[in-house]
Amino acid sequence: MLPDDSHSPIAVFDSGLGGLTVARAIRQALPHESIVYFGDTARLPYGSKSAPTVLRFARQCLRFLMQLQPKLLVVACNTVSATALETLADEFPVPVLGVLQPGARAAVTLARSIAPGGPCRIGLIATEATIASNAYPTAIAHMDHRVHVVGRPCPLLVPLIEEGRSADSPIVRAVLEDYLASFTGLNITAMILGCTHYPIFASAIADVLGPRTQLVDAARQTALEAHGVLDGLRQLRPPGKRGKFTCYVTDQGLRFERLASLFLGHEIGQPTAVAAEMLEAAMVEQA
Amino acid sequence: MLPDDSHSPIAVFDSGLGGLTVARAIRQALPHESIVYFGDTARLPYGSKSAPTVLRFARQCLRFLMQLQPKLLVVACNTVSATALETLADEFPVPVLGVLQPGARAAVTLARSIAPGGPCRIGLIATEATIASNAYPTAIAHMDHRVHVVGRPCPLLVPLIEEGRSADSPIVRAVLEDYLASFTGLNITAMILGCTHYPIFASAIADVLGPRTQLVDAARQTALEAHGVLDGLRQLRPPGKRGKFTCYVTDQGLRFERLASLFLGHEIGQPTAVAAEMLEAAMVEQA
Repeated sequence: MLPDDSHSPIAVFDSGLGGLTVARAIRQALPHESIVYFGDTARLPYGSKSAPTVLRFARQCLRFLMQLQPKLLVVACNTVSATALETLADEFPVPVLGVLQPGARAAVTLARSIAPGGPCRIGLIATEATIASNAYPTAIAHMDHRVHVVGRPCPLLVPLIEEGRSADSPIVRAVLEDYLASFTGLNITAMILGCTHYPIFASAIADVLGPRTQLVDAARQTALEAHGVLDGLRQLRPPGKRGKFTCYVTDQGLRFERLASLFLGHEIGQPTAVAAEMLEAAMVEQA
Repeated sequence: MLPDDSHSPIAVFDSGLGGLTVARAIRQALPHESIVYFGDTARLPYGSKSAPTVLRFARQCLRFLMQLQPKLLVVACNTVSATALETLADEFPVPVLGVLQPGARAAVTLARSIAPGGPCRIGLIATEATIASNAYPTAIAHMDHRVHVVGRPCPLLVPLIEEGRSADSPIVRAVLEDYLASFTGLNITAMILGCTHYPIFASAIADVLGPRTQLVDAARQTALEAHGVLDGLRQLRPPGKRGKFTCYVTDQGLRFERLASLFLGHEIGQPTAVAAEMLEAAMVEQA
């Protein structure tokens, strides 16, 4: 009989605080589970960096999280999910769930519900690294080869959200219209928001795209799949009191409080700071 | 008699590639000098991160550069110059020159040439960390207490430049008008571009500000002061063939080539990659 890990936490990792949108969905789906969140805020963003650097940083963060003995590692960062997930999943002794496969599955299901049979097109907006990886089109082609993915990197959306601009500001609107013009006339049935920041602008994105394109809720699908994985392993925590939420970051930065409550939907206590050089040093020792 | 260090290189450090605008000015002023450039491209940007994290990262990079035995360390990053320069200057056995004091001096000189005597106002656009540090107003108050500084963080300008948008794009224009509206009616005589990226948008910034505000060329002043420091120490390299230019980065990223030629004004060879964990590990050993 396996040891009972049901009281262990779910670990959620992101390059920054955007992954709190995924933590929030997990918390809604699994309110009894404890969550430890880790944001590599000292080295963010990952989305403009090379795949080897992204893998190295992500590995360090997951090794740190493993010390907290989680029963499941959720990689809430699209860039890491797109460029490094298979490698990471092979290296750790607990299940590793990314956001890309759930997002892709939700998109294909949604597109198929709107346009059953026949070919159809899904849109993807994401970081430069995620688009360059081609991971979403590859994953979706495996699920349904008649679904074609049209992608567009949108590097300004994260800085706009992090600056605190609201979705109805004229500059946000102009940037969205500029990026989303790539999809005009392509009959996009479903749009993947391939970065955990983007749901903050969901209503404005939906508005620019018009009523014929549905947005995919990848965070919710990821939470459902986390539920499924833990259920399959008989590691769901029994109902009782609400699980704890603990947050670790590598830099408390200037924006922590504003962004944390924006993404999580409620206030958050002071996070624990972890020095990035301790993560890096641990890597060299283990090398 | 001191050892002859005149053939040693000048080391130029930045969080990324923006500091190449400063390296370019040094190369124009001192064509015989060899330059080693270091961009911490794996961990950029620094401008949205906390002062302790910026100091830690900068210290690691400068320790790396010291292994190349430079005769002068130029901190081309405004955020590091604003938040960490005094501490760093105390730690290294060679002169450490930032961009803030030269930029402030150039601004005060320019403002005084336009409005001799009496009070006057200088504008400052920069990263959030540089504005929050209050380092420019403090430095300028020491130079001339009748000069008042009005600052504005402009976090979208770096991502806009890094995305490759040109200064005449409507979105760039709208963002500049939004940020620079803070200065309307304030009679700003001189504007400090307090981030090494911003000179790329210089003509558009000048256009939005109008002819009554002059832009400060901090890179050129930094190059002149580097010249002065080396002259004072009798460490200028004797005229002869053109100095070498060598580039180190912590991540070659997706944007290296485009940005390097944009900032430096000409093509650049492949840089040498330095793994960030080697920088971090060296720190832990020395701690």
